[in-house]
Amino acid sequence: MQTKSFSIGIDIGGTNTTFGMVNTRGEILDQGRLHTPDYPTPETFVDALQELILPKIKEKGLERFSGIGIGAPNANYYSGEIALAPNLPWKGTIPLRSLMQDAFQLPVTITNDAKATAIGEMTYGAAKGMKDFIMITLGTGIGSGFVSNGQLIYGHDGFAGELGHTIAIRGGRLCGCGRNGCLETYSSATGIVKTAIEWLNTRPHPQQRLPAEWLFSLYQSKGKVSSSEIHSAALAGDPLAIEIFDFTGKILGQALADAVAITSPQAIFIFGGLAKAGDFIITPAKLYMEQNLLGIYKNKIELIPSGLSERDAAILGSSALAWG
Amino acid sequence: MQTKSFSIGIDIGGTNTTFGMVNTRGEILDQGRLHTPDYPTPETFVDALQELILPKIKEKGLERFSGIGIGAPNANYYSGEIALAPNLPWKGTIPLRSLMQDAFQLPVTITNDAKATAIGEMTYGAAKGMKDFIMITLGTGIGSGFVSNGQLIYGHDGFAGELGHTIAIRGGRLCGCGRNGCLETYSSATGIVKTAIEWLNTRPHPQQRLPAEWLFSLYQSKGKVSSSEIHSAALAGDPLAIEIFDFTGKILGQALADAVAITSPQAIFIFGGLAKAGDFIITPAKLYMEQNLLGIYKNKIELIPSGLSERDAAILGSSALAWG
Repeated sequence: MQTKSFSIGIDIGGTNTTFGMVNTRGEILDQGRLHTPDYPTPETFVDALQELILPKIKEKGLERFSGIGIGAPNANYYSGEIALAPNLPWKGTIPLRSLMQDAFQLPVTITNDAKATAIGEMTYGAAKGMKDFIMITLGTGIGSGFVSNGQLIYGHDGFAGELGHTIAIRGGRLCGCGRNGCLETYSSATGIVKTAIEWLNTRPHPQQRLPAEWLFSLYQSKGKVSSSEIHSAALAGDPLAIEIFDFTGKILGQALADAVAITSPQAIFIFGGLAKAGDFIITPAKLYMEQNLLGIYKNKIELIPSGLSERDAAILGSSALAWG
Repeated sequence: MQTKSFSIGIDIGGTNTTFGMVNTRGEILDQGRLHTPDYPTPETFVDALQELILPKIKEKGLERFSGIGIGAPNANYYSGEIALAPNLPWKGTIPLRSLMQDAFQLPVTITNDAKATAIGEMTYGAAKGMKDFIMITLGTGIGSGFVSNGQLIYGHDGFAGELGHTIAIRGGRLCGCGRNGCLETYSSATGIVKTAIEWLNTRPHPQQRLPAEWLFSLYQSKGKVSSSEIHSAALAGDPLAIEIFDFTGKILGQALADAVAITSPQAIFIFGGLAKAGDFIITPAKLYMEQNLLGIYKNKIELIPSGLSERDAAILGSSALAWG
């Protein structure tokens, strides 16, 4: 398809920015990292990227590169800007695409992390050859990328794919977006912790054998729990932790059933921090999705972990944007 | 774009089948009608269409026709079949596309009514030039067609776009699909009647001046109400009827807000029986949609009546499929 040999993928996060050079087979040939908050302005940040990456591009030959793909929070595919990203050090609206194009003299494509992951899955992962699928990233929030007819749905303004902000429970938990009951307040890594804290504070302690008390004991001693600790507790057989996953997967599965009724995908891929819990989250999500699906969709849709490795996904997803 | 001059649009309904010859400007040059239940088999039905339409095609010249587009309940774009349509006289799976292609020797495209209306809106109506919009048909049920990147979303199996079967109220009204709380049990022409009957049976009669009792009086005398009578009552100032529309629009608006978070459309078009109520349904739907939208989508999306005339939409929508 493409005649170019390499692309550059850059994933900008609030803490770290990772970047790498990727070939057409999805192999990362060279990679690096920046500590994002070290750069007080987007210009100093782009300068640093240029200094680190441009020599390597020139070594291979600029003409062999298809371009640069960037995944970043609140990045807009159409405008090429990052707008009001709460976790990045730069305020206001940043014309990242034009800054990068000027610095590198290569085509630059930007979009948000979940959409980049969807493109990465289609280019290098388990969605190769699929034309209709959904990518769900379960992290601090919930991101999503919808692919239909082999194309990512950007929407007329680039802001499509906010499944995390569909309403899971009307009048439910307050979300960071200011509304109530958003899916991401329940089924993200943050959401499952909220459920755990709520339940640990309101439910009587189940009087069972020691492994069953794992999560409760931990909470009593530390005063908090993390999503990976809830996962560990579930692995240790803690029934409360397993029930927390069941509830989290139920809310997710119900939301997925509604999303399916809109785009009728062949598969749904789950990625991100909470996806590491594997069957603890996927089994209930699948069960409740199926229970809530309209008849014509039942038993047709794969709900599976992403085919991208956690370690490489950010760079691969971003780089995939650049193959166009 | 196309070099052909005409296409044929056929809209198959449980009672009537309408068909027409349409030119590139969306003018219906010639049209006709069949009483669908008169034809015991799909073959006799196709024979009748052939007898009525083929002479007119040959008169103009077969080579000047782009093809035949058919909108029908449960019609699948990919398979070319109508499967298990409860309101059609033919049972089982009907290979309508191949029957029609054999009879007419023209390309045939089939899809369901709501998707055909979406394509019609894009080709001849208010969505001309739009790449991202949603078409909602509020009839006996609720149909929908999602257009993204200028393409209709069919989904991997052709069954995308069932917004009417997303869950509006979990555990709510029993739907014809066997599940509970589907949007179409509340915000279709059938749904608003259900709300009216429920409220007329459970609420004390508002002791107000005569116009305000319109709907109640009607219900007492006839034992039933229709969606157009609820509309008439609202026009007469009946506060209960207006409140019924407000509730119906609220449930619709909430569902639209969630749909927007997935495809981020430029506009949402409302079509079908209940859409005739105009502002009585659109004003509350818009109000509650805006109230429930994530910030980035607020005040950007038009929610407006379809630009297709009720009388012509079925033929125009179907014919638009054939321009490909």
